[in-house]
Amino acid sequence: MSRVVVDVMPKQAILDPQGQAVHGALGRLGFAGISEVRLGKRFELEVDGELTEERLAEVRCAAETLLANTVIEDFTVRVEAAG
Amino acid sequence: MSRVVVDVMPKQAILDPQGQAVHGALGRLGFAGISEVRLGKRFELEVDGELTEERLAEVRCAAETLLANTVIEDFTVRVEAAG
Repeated sequence: MSRVVVDVMPKQAILDPQGQAVHGALGRLGFAGISEVRLGKRFELEVDGELTEERLAEVRCAAETLLANTVIEDFTVRVEAAG
Repeated sequence: MSRVVVDVMPKQAILDPQGQAVHGALGRLGFAGISEVRLGKRFELEVDGELTEERLAEVRCAAETLLANTVIEDFTVRVEAAG
């Protein structure tokens, strides 16, 4: 079993109101010196069996079609040691 | 300027209905061989100036008090090369 992590973040050109809200809240709570916060999603997929290049390509395809909205979001796929 | 990434995931013992919904959707779309999906949040914080141990401890404190609900969520803080 392998763990594949898909990180989905709003594109740089896209406004991120959630991140801005967190940024504002950090400031009000006294955490200064942070110039920007962006908020995205982290998917952890437990993939059965051996993680071949083919399986990884499938996960990438799933990420592109289901997990991320590629019009407004960027995604990265990476393999992580299973926890 | 440094980028600090805070990953917030539901604790293993906590039910994750969002992740289960994604898992079900993946199955229906024909992506088999995935045994579990967990869905969490990824915060990217752009920290001004040099990232000292002190600044990083501040970010860790912010993550614990604002970004994660430590009753039901685990978080990790790590430094990433600024993009």
